[in-house]
Amino acid sequence: MILCDIGNTSYHFLDGDAEYKRDVKSFIPSAYQDKVYYISVNSEVNKKLHGLKNWIDISSYVDKSQYYESMGIDRIFSCEAIESGVVVDAGSAITVDIVKNGNFMGGFIYPGVNAMRETYKKISPALDYSFNFDLELDIMPKNSQDAISYGFLKTLFTEVSSYDMPIILTGGDASLLQKVFKTAIVENELIFKGMKKIIKKAKLC
Amino acid sequence: MILCDIGNTSYHFLDGDAEYKRDVKSFIPSAYQDKVYYISVNSEVNKKLHGLKNWIDISSYVDKSQYYESMGIDRIFSCEAIESGVVVDAGSAITVDIVKNGNFMGGFIYPGVNAMRETYKKISPALDYSFNFDLELDIMPKNSQDAISYGFLKTLFTEVSSYDMPIILTGGDASLLQKVFKTAIVENELIFKGMKKIIKKAKLC
Repeated sequence: MILCDIGNTSYHFLDGDAEYKRDVKSFIPSAYQDKVYYISVNSEVNKKLHGLKNWIDISSYVDKSQYYESMGIDRIFSCEAIESGVVVDAGSAITVDIVKNGNFMGGFIYPGVNAMRETYKKISPALDYSFNFDLELDIMPKNSQDAISYGFLKTLFTEVSSYDMPIILTGGDASLLQKVFKTAIVENELIFKGMKKIIKKAKLC
Repeated sequence: MILCDIGNTSYHFLDGDAEYKRDVKSFIPSAYQDKVYYISVNSEVNKKLHGLKNWIDISSYVDKSQYYESMGIDRIFSCEAIESGVVVDAGSAITVDIVKNGNFMGGFIYPGVNAMRETYKKISPALDYSFNFDLELDIMPKNSQDAISYGFLKTLFTEVSSYDMPIILTGGDASLLQKVFKTAIVENELIFKGMKKIIKKAKLC
């Protein structure tokens, strides 16, 4: 079974145990003959896929009644993967979603690592630093690099920690954020876990 | 006595009780004949002012030993204005600085309202919303506008509130942020207050 999670920049595949990414700009989906179960937040890619019979969009098999209309399908599938906890998905945006006993309680959207880096740089060249992920969170900064790192990371950390729930980190920057969220569990394949669960429930294969 | 706080985009004057701003691009400082006491974070403007005898840079009269080298002079003067509290200065960046019994304890830098709005927009056109400053902070969002508003505002609020100190709001977006920081005191002339204090201490006039 081949699974694919399609984002704004890449196709993320899981084929058995093999996990790999393909660039949205260069990958040609019609070149695949095998059956691919996918979800996608990319409207351009969706247009290409709708004419291909072996690409099966599984987004309609999830009960969306507890989510909201404009919520990204990737966030929904991550939430479906867990029973209780806070899902922190660190990609181009960092989405933070709360699930309690299988119920979606709501969530928020924070800028991702690269987006935030660009933001500080644009505000002033004096803030053009990479983030210090080894920042001491209990000490108020007294230098520019730590001042922006704290602004980006500590505010998010304080908020997410305040829920007092298990934290599940996923997404491309999960390992970076784990340096700050030290007690969090990293689950790189959380969306695929959600996809497998829905495929099984819907008896698709 | 004319005071002037020069930022990246404007000259901010206080002349007696009259407060006004002039655009950095169009204002010609040599047109002023009166004595002007100023601080500036704008290196381009600094070059222009150094040759003008009636423009007096008062930044050197503050004891900088407790601050850090790359810290903006505007932040330093805001801190000088208070004895104890958290200064939240909401401009192109939102700087958050802690002062305890006249001592600077450190601070952090968060993106300003406009910068953050642009950031979300750039991440995805689906996040191109203005912020909802009337957001209910105790409810996890279930729509896109609230999801980014919460991401921007609630994380900052939770962090700043955790210090359990009086909050002083200043800067161009102070009144917007007061909708979230309901118990904060708005002090639009905090930097000028700091400037007056230093001028008096240094017996400059």
